[in-house]
This record gives sequence, structure tokens and C-alpha cells, in this order.
Amino acid sequence: MAQNLLQGKKGIIFGALDEKSIAWKTAKRCVEQGAQIVLTNAPIALRMGEIKKLAEECNAPVIPADITNMDDLNNLFTQSMEHFGGKIDFVLHSVGMSINMRKGRPYTDLDYDFTHKTMDISAISLHRVLQTAYKLDALNEHASVVALTYIAAQRVFPDYSEMADAKAMLESVARSFGYHYGIKNKVRINTISQSPVRTTAGSGVKGFDDFINFAEEMSPLGNASADQCADYTVTLFSDLTRMVTMQNLYHDGGFSSTGVTMAVLDKK
Amino acid sequence: MAQNLLQGKKGIIFGALDEKSIAWKTAKRCVEQGAQIVLTNAPIALRMGEIKKLAEECNAPVIPADITNMDDLNNLFTQSMEHFGGKIDFVLHSVGMSINMRKGRPYTDLDYDFTHKTMDISAISLHRVLQTAYKLDALNEHASVVALTYIAAQRVFPDYSEMADAKAMLESVARSFGYHYGIKNKVRINTISQSPVRTTAGSGVKGFDDFINFAEEMSPLGNASADQCADYTVTLFSDLTRMVTMQNLYHDGGFSSTGVTMAVLDKK
Amino acid sequence: MAQNLLQGKKGIIFGALDEKSIAWKTAKRCVEQGAQIVLTNAPIALRMGEIKKLAEECNAPVIPADITNMDDLNNLFTQSMEHFGGKIDFVLHSVGMSINMRKGRPYTDLDYDFTHKTMDISAISLHRVLQTAYKLDALNEHASVVALTYIAAQRVFPDYSEMADAKAMLESVARSFGYHYGIKNKVRINTISQSPVRTTAGSGVKGFDDFINFAEEMSPLGNASADQCADYTVTLFSDLTRMVTMQNLYHDGGFSSTGVTMAVLDKK
Amino acid sequence: MAQNLLQGKKGIIFGALDEKSIAWKTAKRCVEQGAQIVLTNAPIALRMGEIKKLAEECNAPVIPADITNMDDLNNLFTQSMEHFGGKIDFVLHSVGMSINMRKGRPYTDLDYDFTHKTMDISAISLHRVLQTAYKLDALNEHASVVALTYIAAQRVFPDYSEMADAKAMLESVARSFGYHYGIKNKVRINTISQSPVRTTAGSGVKGFDDFINFAEEMSPLGNASADQCADYTVTLFSDLTRMVTMQNLYHDGGFSSTGVTMAVLDKK
Repeated sequence: MAQNLLQGKKGIIFGALDEKSIAWKTAKRCVEQGAQIVLTNAPIALRMGEIKKLAEECNAPVIPADITNMDDLNNLFTQSMEHFGGKIDFVLHSVGMSINMRKGRPYTDLDYDFTHKTMDISAISLHRVLQTAYKLDALNEHASVVALTYIAAQRVFPDYSEMADAKAMLESVARSFGYHYGIKNKVRINTISQSPVRTTAGSGVKGFDDFINFAEEMSPLGNASADQCADYTVTLFSDLTRMVTMQNLYHDGGFSSTGVTMAVLDKK
Repeated sequence: MAQNLLQGKKGIIFGALDEKSIAWKTAKRCVEQGAQIVLTNAPIALRMGEIKKLAEECNAPVIPADITNMDDLNNLFTQSMEHFGGKIDFVLHSVGMSINMRKGRPYTDLDYDFTHKTMDISAISLHRVLQTAYKLDALNEHASVVALTYIAAQRVFPDYSEMADAKAMLESVARSFGYHYGIKNKVRINTISQSPVRTTAGSGVKGFDDFINFAEEMSPLGNASADQCADYTVTLFSDLTRMVTMQNLYHDGGFSSTGVTMAVLDKK
Repeated sequence: MAQNLLQGKKGIIFGALDEKSIAWKTAKRCVEQGAQIVLTNAPIALRMGEIKKLAEECNAPVIPADITNMDDLNNLFTQSMEHFGGKIDFVLHSVGMSINMRKGRPYTDLDYDFTHKTMDISAISLHRVLQTAYKLDALNEHASVVALTYIAAQRVFPDYSEMADAKAMLESVARSFGYHYGIKNKVRINTISQSPVRTTAGSGVKGFDDFINFAEEMSPLGNASADQCADYTVTLFSDLTRMVTMQNLYHDGGFSSTGVTMAVLDKK
Repeated sequence: MAQNLLQGKKGIIFGALDEKSIAWKTAKRCVEQGAQIVLTNAPIALRMGEIKKLAEECNAPVIPADITNMDDLNNLFTQSMEHFGGKIDFVLHSVGMSINMRKGRPYTDLDYDFTHKTMDISAISLHRVLQTAYKLDALNEHASVVALTYIAAQRVFPDYSEMADAKAMLESVARSFGYHYGIKNKVRINTISQSPVRTTAGSGVKGFDDFINFAEEMSPLGNASADQCADYTVTLFSDLTRMVTMQNLYHDGGFSSTGVTMAVLDKK
């Protein structure tokens, strides 16, 4: 049921780790819709992941890049343009990691060196990607950039810890750079605030199953899946949404606009 | 460049008045994308308008309905289902009118009988449409309802007067009914908060040209056009956005996330 | 521990029904803080209520007024100014009633005549009060108007039904009129979005106890009480908040910024 | 006209540089309202500033602390508790600096080492302060923490550059830590989003005068002054606002809820 929504478009997908990841599914969906893509991830993630399988399915090169390293990003965009023989039409940023959570440090006992790394990987990285593209003039007019975020940027979910602060900054970077890149090249930059998903990355979060069930019960349509997120992202990469920019878009089955459901109240 | 995004879908379009109206353009775009539609408007608007031309282009019946009259709405949905031979997949609500503005009464001198009429036509009408569909079980699973709104529901634009309050209520109705219809049938209901457009309806607003220029200068991508709004609405009617519900979605070239632009500051 | 925050100020309090009501507690707190007040409510509410007791404690006249009747409101403001020998410094609007809820009609089966009455009593009434004051030039410079609202205007709480839509409109009226009255007389108009409270009015809502317990568990500080709301309202009537206007202010122990608490998750 | 709103309370004020700074005015206002305070700032700022004058007027010790240094913060809170002979009731965080702006680097050409410093000084610093207090159990029950922020965290003001992203993170830290400290000790944490003010710090921003005039014209009550911000902060430190937490509170004469004013449109 592909509609060639992305016919002729060229994009870079950050963050595909394995079959469960949203970036993985988005990569596939973009190709189904007619796009050509380049896959990228941190060298260490590439070693752990199964990205070769995805690369074959998508007929896409894999270009490693540490998203906190400007040389790597410069190389990524330069090589991608060479590969495509032209500029880029869309970018997916699906990257985030909390070092403090990995190390088991709660929000009231952060190590600030870890916090700086968390911010760099999860939020400043979007700025690094955009600044690299901006300086290389690597994006076509009306290009579309999407970064994945979570509603913890607006409301506290205690186990989400410092990632909430990173996502708040990430969303601000999308707005701030969206202004400058919009004026320069009509590039649009948005964030998708996605339902919790049982990805390999997400599974590291404490109490995640209880939480995902709570979100399911608090969403009139249930939690949005990774596949559905890929579909939604395709619409934002397409030409049908050219005037949507600097927005944080909830893709969550209605969770964000729901105060309580009868399903949750009836449990009490 | 149609992608058959709405192949096989059936919808009702409220509010197409003439070629400038968003509903008109949306109707055409839906048909181009493979949908069948029914057109409707108030009997008096139908007399004034050029809807026959649109009906021919879209191969669509026109079923008159006063959106504040439950019998009319009941008839509209019943006849539409007969026409389609089945239930409905999408509805566009593009209806609004301020009686006080028409009568030249400023916001600090409202006539409250007029206000009640304004609220009925512009906000309660969405509830009337949804309640009619709900009782008739007229919408398919995953059906999508979109109502057009304006950012005056969040921030004051003095000339927009009581329509701001009507749009605030309209957006709330979308959320409230979105909850109930989501749980019942996975129907999703959203509002699109659109840039100002020089429609025939909009042209009645005092100082509208100055305002539309201000909005243009305050939007990094400029004002979104009626055509672009039609494109965006198509994505919300498609199956690619099935988990987006109860949202107010800005389609405004970035206006809503912009505090000021250099273009505006440089004029000072 | 009164600090004479409202020394010399004169205000009108709408909606004191009995000792549990927020308006009742606010009336007392304002007088403790040095203000003079006039009490008002609908004639029928005055008959049912115990307002004479409050009037004696506050040394305040009671002036009946149907808040949907312009003659009554005109009389109320005129008499109040005569009583005070001058203009008014603050107004509390604590008025709301859903006719459909009273009649047991769910949100998907509204009677629209009832809806119009609900909107008139609960939302348009604030405009009626402000327009009356505006035309009579009844408010001093820097006067402060507060209306009570609920977060259902932003997120769905199914049992709150059409009151959600009324509160959304109420908050919009506060913004819209706040613009005009701010420019004219530096009058500020805000809404307080208060935790659920076991008032006599609130007790009519289905499943209210379950809901109030849920809100308690979802608020890091617990639910804010009616007494605490009175305290907060006093700060908004004082000269210390002269530049706060057109805001919706959550007074809710953190509920509005909390996605989930461990207390709620641990119950699952 | 002091009302002893803070009688018996003890607080720490970060960021008083000179007579124009909001922290300076807040310090004085807190003392007028009955509080005892400790003043603190970075050693380098203390050398440049005139804080001795303020310290004398407030009868307050000055304890230097680099807000990005945990030893300094630990010493500050420990010494403050010794000085007060007890725990602390309120903290003002009025600290922020963009290194990239100081160095003249635009938002599309950031140096990321500078960005990390900006984030540390302007946003992570609030976490450092709170974590220090939390570990030392240095705050009384119901203590109140206020951090100053700006609406650039929600909407783009191009000249505000990376400070927008820092403020977005700062506001998130206030929410996140507000949850944990609220549950532990009923401590409340809020941010005040203040009108632009001609402080010595603010005067470094390019085009600041044009901008401040724009904000004045876009605010129905005009820009809120530093003195008025001090007044508002006092209400948040007082016991009258005990249930307000995890909020971002606009103190801006209505700017945040205004889409356009006639004053701005008439200039066009």
C-alpha cells in the first residue's frame, strides 16, 4: 500500500539499532514510499546492532558517525551527498541515551559529567547535525527534519530522569534552528512526541512495563506503535506538510490530551 | 502528483463556499487522492455560493444542512451513507461565523443573543455533527474528523473578537468528543490551527490585510496557503496518522513558535 | 497571620454557597486581609445557601444577581459602588453549572438548549460581568479579576463532560477581555485552575471520590484545598502581582506538570 | 507598605550583580518583608559588582560560590545554615550566561564547548543547587525555590540564541526536581518567565533596545519591571502559594497571551 509519497527524495536515518527501533521501521517505510536513504549510527552501536540486514533490505550504505563528533558529521553529510549525487531532503534524529540512568544514578544524585554526556548525545547532537548541514548547505529547499522526543519534556515521569531535561532542550533546539533554517532555505524542523515503545533502548528503563501499561490505559486509542510512528514520520517528510515547522507533535493515541480514563479510574 | 492516499475512503466536507475557501480546496484534493465525497453547507450559503461547479468537478452530491439543526444533520448523515453504500471515513468541519462582528459590535459591547448564535454555529456545531454521527453509528473505525481553528484560541488578536472564544470551545469539543469516540470506535478528532487566509469569509474582518502581512512577516516560512492546508488535511484523513487524536495542530509556517522575527524588528 | 495585603481594597465575590465553597473561604480571607466586600449569588442559590452567616462574619451586604441577566449585573455594580463610595478593586468569579450533568445526560447525548444554558452560566457570564463593569467604568486602575477553572479545559476528564468546553471558553474570555481591559485601565484578568475540591457543588459529579483520590495521588504535593485556593487568590488581588494578566494559573500541587507518580504506578 | 509576608523566613539569593539586577531588587524586597538572607554570586562577579552595598543594606553575609562547583555549593548551604541557625525557606536562582553570545558566535555557528558551559551555568546549575540542598537536607518543609526564565524557551526570539535552549532545560529541571522534592519535603519549585529588563546582563544582547520596545508594545500592561518581578517573587516565597509547584509563571504584562496588539499593527 505504498503511495510513493517520498518518490525521488533522499534522506539520512540516525539511530536504527535493531528491528524494534523506530528508526529501523522508519528507514524501511521511507524506502517503501520511494525514498533513497543513508543509514548511520555510532560505531559502537553499529558493532552491536544488526544494521547490515537493514542496509541490504533498504539498499542503503551505512556510514558510521559519532553524533557528538563534528568531523564524523561532516564526513557523513559529505559522503551522503556524494552517494546521492545531490542534496538531502529529510533527516530522522532518533538518538538518546542517559548515562546516569545506565549507571543507576537517580535524578537526585546525578553525576554532572554524565549529565553533560547525556545532553550532548541526546540534545546538542541535533544542533550538531543541523549546524553541519547548514554550513555544508546540504539540505534541499523544503527539506524536513524530524527528531523523536517524549512527553516527559512537559510532564514529569519519574523514571525518565534526566532524559526529560534532555528532551526539553532537544525540542527547543528544533524550534530555534527551525527558525534560522526556515528563513534560509524553507527547511522545516519538528519533533514527534511518541508513545512509549518497547524498544531495545527503552527496555533499560526501570519499571518500564508497568509504565507502558499505564500509558496504554491512559490513551483513548492505546499506545502508538513504532510502525505507526514510521507512518506518521513519512507524512512529515512528504511535500504534503511543507508548512508545518517548529512544532512538537504528539503521536500518542490521545495520551497528551487525556487527564484520566475510566479504565484507570475503575482500577482504583 | 496524487498518491491515492485516500483510495476507497468516503467523506463529508462542510463549509465549501467558493474557490477561495479551504473546504473547497480540500474537497478537490480529497477527490484527487482517491476519495468520494459529499458536500454540504447551510441552505443560504448554498444559494450564494458556486458550489455546483465544485460538485461537478468532484462528482459529488450536495446535501444542504443547517449545522445547528439536528434534523438536518441526521438527514445529511443518513443520506450520505445511502449515497456511499456504507459508513463514512472522514469529515471536515470548516464552519464559523461571528454575528457580533457582522453587526459591527466590538468585543466590549457584545449582544449575547448574537454570542449564543456565534457559539452555536462555530463551536457547538462540531458537537452536533459528532453526536449525530455517534448516534447513527455513521463513522467507520479509524475515521478521521478535522475542524479548522485559529491561534486566537490561545493568544489574543483583538480584531478576532468573540471568534477566539468560539474557537477555544471548538478545540475543547474536539478533545472531549475525541476521547469518547476514540474509545468507542478508534475515531480520531483533531483541529488544524491554520495561518490566516484571504478567503471570502475572512475578508470581512477589520484590518485583515495589515494583519495578514504581520502574520506573514512573523512566520519563518510565511503564511500557509489554503492549498497547503488542503494537503495537510489529506494526511490527517489518511491511514498514516491513525494514532494522532485530540490534538490542535498548527499549520502556520512556524508562526506559533516564533516570538519575533528580524523582519518585524527591522521595521521598527 | 493576616498581613493586610488587601488593606483599603473593595471587591465583589460571586458564588459563595456554603462553608465548603471556595468563594466563601475567599470572602473571609479577603476580609481578614483588610478588604471590604460585597457578596452576590443567584437569588435561588441565596435561598438555599447559608450566606447570611457569611455576610455577618464579613460585615458585607448581599446583593442578589442572576449572572446571566444584564439588569441584575448593572444593579449589582451600581449598588456596590454606592456601598463602597467608589470603584471596585477585585472580583472573584466562582460560578459554573452543567445543566446536562444535572439532568443525567452524558457527553455523547447532550441537549443543546441545556448546553446553551451551561455556557451562559459558566462562561459567557464572565464576559457579562466584565462588560458591565467596563461600561460602568466600575473598576479601579490595576483592579484584579479572578475566575476559577479546571484543567479539564486542557485534558479530558470524562465525567467533567460539557463543563470542560465551558471552562475552555471561560479561560478564553479571561484572555480576550484581559487584553481590552488591560489596555484601557491596566485591569488584569486571570483564571486559577484549581485542584478538585469536595464542595457541595462538586459533590454532584459522578465518581467524584475516586477521581479526587486519583488527583491526590497524581499531585506531588497532594490536592490544593479550598483554603489554600483562597490564600492564592489573595495574592492575585494584591498589588504584588500587578503585571500578571491573561494567565491560566495552576493551583494544584503539581498535578498539571506530572505525567505519573510512583504512587499511581505502584497501585497497578 | 511591607506586610511581613516573609516574617521569620530565611533565604539564599543567587545572582545579585548591581542595582539593576532582579536579584538585587528581590533581595531588598525579601528583607523589607521580614526575611533574613544570604547573598551569593560567582567570585568573579563579586569582584566586578557592588554587592557590598547591598549586603550592608540587607544586613546579609556574602558567601561566594561558583554555581557550577559542587564544593562551593556545599559550602554555601552549610555556611548559610550555620549563619541562620537552621534550614532555608527560599532560594532565588537568577543566573544565566551564554558564552557563545559573549564571543559573538551566532546560533548557526556555535562552539560546543561554549554551549556546554552555557548549559552548565544557566540550566544544570539549578540542578546542582537543588541536589546540594537535597543531600544536605537544607530546605524546610514547604520551602520555595524560584528560578528566572524567559519565554524564548517556548517561542523563538532570534537574538536570544542558545539561551533559549538553556532556559528550556532550566524549566524542565524545575519540573523534574519539583516532583522529587515535593514528594520528599513538600518543597515547591517554579520558574518565573519575566518580561525583558534592561539589566546590566541583558544589555549585552544585540538589538536589545528594539526588542524591549517591541515587547512593550506587545504587552497590554507593558513590560513588567524588575521591581515588580521582585514583588511577584515575594508572593511565591510566602506561605500563601504553598500549593503552586512545577509551574512556569509568566510575569509579563500579558505578552505571552497576546498574538498582536493594535499598537503593533498600527505601526505597519
